[in-house]
Amino acid sequence: MPTGKLQIIPLGGMGEFGMNCMAIRFGDDIIVIDAGLMFPEAELLGVDIVVPDISYLLENRKFVRGIVLTHGHEDHIGALPWILGELNVPVWGTEFTLAYFEDKLDEHQLLDDADLREIRPGERFKVGPFTIHPLQVTHSLVDCVALAIHTPLGVVLHTGDFKVDPTPTDNRLFDLHGFAEYGKEGVLALLQDSTNVERKGYTPSERAVHRKFEEVFVRTQRRLFISCFSSSIHRIKLTVDMAREHGRKICFIGRSMNNSSEIAEDLGYIQIPDGMLIHPGEMKNYPPEKVCVLISGTQGEPMSALSRAAVDNHKHAKIEKGDTVVLSSRIIPGNEKAIFRMLDHMFRKRALVYYDNDGGTIHVSGHASQEEQKMLLNLVRPRYFIPVHGEFRQLFRHSALAHSVGSVSGEILLIEDGQPIEFTEDRAYRREPVTAGRVCVDSGSLEEIEEVVIRDRKHLSEDGVVVPIIAINKHTGQIESQPEIVTRGFMPSDNVPELINGAREVVLRTVEQSNDEEKTDWSVIKEKIRVDLRRYLKKQTSKRPLILPVILEL
Amino acid sequence: MPTGKLQIIPLGGMGEFGMNCMAIRFGDDIIVIDAGLMFPEAELLGVDIVVPDISYLLENRKFVRGIVLTHGHEDHIGALPWILGELNVPVWGTEFTLAYFEDKLDEHQLLDDADLREIRPGERFKVGPFTIHPLQVTHSLVDCVALAIHTPLGVVLHTGDFKVDPTPTDNRLFDLHGFAEYGKEGVLALLQDSTNVERKGYTPSERAVHRKFEEVFVRTQRRLFISCFSSSIHRIKLTVDMAREHGRKICFIGRSMNNSSEIAEDLGYIQIPDGMLIHPGEMKNYPPEKVCVLISGTQGEPMSALSRAAVDNHKHAKIEKGDTVVLSSRIIPGNEKAIFRMLDHMFRKRALVYYDNDGGTIHVSGHASQEEQKMLLNLVRPRYFIPVHGEFRQLFRHSALAHSVGSVSGEILLIEDGQPIEFTEDRAYRREPVTAGRVCVDSGSLEEIEEVVIRDRKHLSEDGVVVPIIAINKHTGQIESQPEIVTRGFMPSDNVPELINGAREVVLRTVEQSNDEEKTDWSVIKEKIRVDLRRYLKKQTSKRPLILPVILEL
Repeated sequence: MPTGKLQIIPLGGMGEFGMNCMAIRFGDDIIVIDAGLMFPEAELLGVDIVVPDISYLLENRKFVRGIVLTHGHEDHIGALPWILGELNVPVWGTEFTLAYFEDKLDEHQLLDDADLREIRPGERFKVGPFTIHPLQVTHSLVDCVALAIHTPLGVVLHTGDFKVDPTPTDNRLFDLHGFAEYGKEGVLALLQDSTNVERKGYTPSERAVHRKFEEVFVRTQRRLFISCFSSSIHRIKLTVDMAREHGRKICFIGRSMNNSSEIAEDLGYIQIPDGMLIHPGEMKNYPPEKVCVLISGTQGEPMSALSRAAVDNHKHAKIEKGDTVVLSSRIIPGNEKAIFRMLDHMFRKRALVYYDNDGGTIHVSGHASQEEQKMLLNLVRPRYFIPVHGEFRQLFRHSALAHSVGSVSGEILLIEDGQPIEFTEDRAYRREPVTAGRVCVDSGSLEEIEEVVIRDRKHLSEDGVVVPIIAINKHTGQIESQPEIVTRGFMPSDNVPELINGAREVVLRTVEQSNDEEKTDWSVIKEKIRVDLRRYLKKQTSKRPLILPVILEL
Repeated sequence: MPTGKLQIIPLGGMGEFGMNCMAIRFGDDIIVIDAGLMFPEAELLGVDIVVPDISYLLENRKFVRGIVLTHGHEDHIGALPWILGELNVPVWGTEFTLAYFEDKLDEHQLLDDADLREIRPGERFKVGPFTIHPLQVTHSLVDCVALAIHTPLGVVLHTGDFKVDPTPTDNRLFDLHGFAEYGKEGVLALLQDSTNVERKGYTPSERAVHRKFEEVFVRTQRRLFISCFSSSIHRIKLTVDMAREHGRKICFIGRSMNNSSEIAEDLGYIQIPDGMLIHPGEMKNYPPEKVCVLISGTQGEPMSALSRAAVDNHKHAKIEKGDTVVLSSRIIPGNEKAIFRMLDHMFRKRALVYYDNDGGTIHVSGHASQEEQKMLLNLVRPRYFIPVHGEFRQLFRHSALAHSVGSVSGEILLIEDGQPIEFTEDRAYRREPVTAGRVCVDSGSLEEIEEVVIRDRKHLSEDGVVVPIIAINKHTGQIESQPEIVTRGFMPSDNVPELINGAREVVLRTVEQSNDEEKTDWSVIKEKIRVDLRRYLKKQTSKRPLILPVILEL
């Protein structure tokens, strides 16, 4: 008879896309599955990354035994540098995941202090009261695992990100037997990836892009640029293999592409024969039809290698008339304009551009579609089912999908970040919510950016800033100079003189009309200046700049 | 034999999506086809609308005879309030187009001064040396025309926006006969809408959504909310007709939806029987299954009626458990996150949401796909072909499409904004480019926002602003107070004291270490303070706020 309670506490990724993070607690032992980041929406000005609020873990820091990673994508590992700064616990992950992650830790000089522990698919390991069994799954990245977590109350099976790819390029298959075995033995709770729950059918295998790539390689008569997510090791391998078959040298351009391919080569995921890899600077020494370039920048990021190549602003990569460019990736919503702007430059140069993924021929998703999700549900037949990884609507539809399949014997639990579920021998309870949410982080300093700062930036970005300044003699209370009005991002300078003179008068009048009591409290005067000036500027310009009154005491 | 030269001068919409505007000049007479706006990209901070640069028209203002509108969408009429302020010329448009446009002029108190002239499909009119023949076309809006412009050198046929809809809801058909007739008589140049050139096949008719709407009306057991673009008069008509058939009252919510439906009803595009239209405040008096709400806000705009209804923040519209919401619109790229955030709120309330336009069942495009574009090319058989309305890649692909069809006897001209084409009896020449580009406008004041202001806002938005202030006695050159450092949007206030003290010291040191010559020129001192403080803050915080030094002379 187990003592202690089993809880699942979602801290991120349940109610948003990204920043996946979940705590599993039995009694006084907590493990954390993944610690991902999310990229900020445009309105989070000056924010680089968004990570989960880990107050719950910090409040229970003495119970946290470690973090187990399912795979190396940013939305599963990206918050770790920030979290390890607050809570330095052991991190378990597969060989590739750790290699990928070390790279990031190194950037932040955190690698020396980190306690990284390698795991292998199929090999169980113990953390506190949990025995964890990593099961190999297929995904757009390599060396990914699901986690079967044996607890005193039963097995919690967390799929991580997955699709059921019958023909992955590394021939490391989805462990269907493992899942089937657990289905036979009985699973307490299945936590399954919801990302593609809105897609019918099956997600095509990574090999589905093989045919189109082959066609492109055969047709291309000059230089061939292929861009994919730098973590798409499968896609990099396919490109390298095909370049070899077609007698092209291979060249990696872009920092992330270089890092990724180096790790992949080190770990044997890609094989590049001697003499086939060339440095970007060597490209000019080879005829264009003998070169294939793997280049980062699928999303049209302005500083990426591909964007710069498109406008002749890259030292080595130049896209010229008759060159071929393949965008083997999806368009992440919000990036359309930047991507199409980049493509337009390529069209202007009369490059041949493959970007239309109509029918999934140049890119396939890494996440399971509805039929694969159903298959796993039928294979595992869990007592409880909890959809993970998704916005609310996706979690909701994943719940509905599970209902329609009917292989959940107990309950389907639709929960969001901060909503713990507690399991007992015979039931599952919703517990009091814990703190959960988003933390905005500056990726350079790894420091939190508070909401008030972002709100101010938002205000600054709309109509700029106006700073009225007066110098006051603290003994006499007299104004010692003309008020100075400094503006930026507000109005073009040549419109300003009358407006500024008017603003000066407003400030003077406000100070003069204040009574002596008010004059003893500069914060009152400042607020009055702010209010009067806001009214004046609104009337004159219909704008609402941020107004920042300053009183200099002399 | 005609005297004078015929020129086509694209001023907007050729190289970008939106702000369509084209001048046609014969000798000393210029007419302008459309004057649209474009919505700004997120990085254009504080900019409401983007309009074409009309320097060319202003430089030739005495030759501009007027503006002819093809239809009432914002990307064809939205720049008019701004342009008429600079250049008050007559504007021709169909009844609905003008009615729609008057509404906008009224907002800006420009209606009284405007010279609006109604045209009808099929009825020719003269402007200077041009005889213009409006041809009825079908599109997502009603009362749209193409323009056959008779010039001394031949007919220039501008399609405007179109699709070839065999069954428009208003039964006003695409004038295929008119186009065919021109094809027989001979057309100098065809200027054709490129928007959907990347879509194969035919665009479905507006009636294609009929079946899904019918299904939704039959199934819905409570309140039914339908959201579409407020200009989708066809969609509004369909909804009204179906609500009548299914015994539901109709209710319009949202300013743009109200304006639109009012104009459409006035002009006879929709018929609402007495007693069927209810005010939003009356909704509560009717059983939920007896109400259908047409509501604006398909793009998840935070202040729109639909977004507010989704979070219980609208006075009358509330979305409740079991209600049905239909998003009958496309997702405009860039709006995905806002839209899905709004949908998530509806899912949380357990509303039934139709948003997945898989297969084009709840929304259809208003623009011609490839087969329709080919059909028109074959019907018109122009001597010259110029793709209009599109980003460069779309214009390029439209040129390629025309090549593949082979019915252009002369030349296919791929040109962008500012690139005039001059026609003579036997040839077409590219002329010296004219000024063309984008002007950022504040929609409240209708004033231009200069680029330097937007750059400053961008800088402000990233790391905020730091204002170091010193008061100096202009006679003695002595500093009269401690430097004041004001920041906003930079760092959270509780981290600041040491940093601010450090910054004060930097400022003091900079001033003290300046020599007397420098001290005679405050702008030099300010620049030195800016540079030194920037270095200090970068080192301490790895941030680069905008630094705005102020020296108060006492």
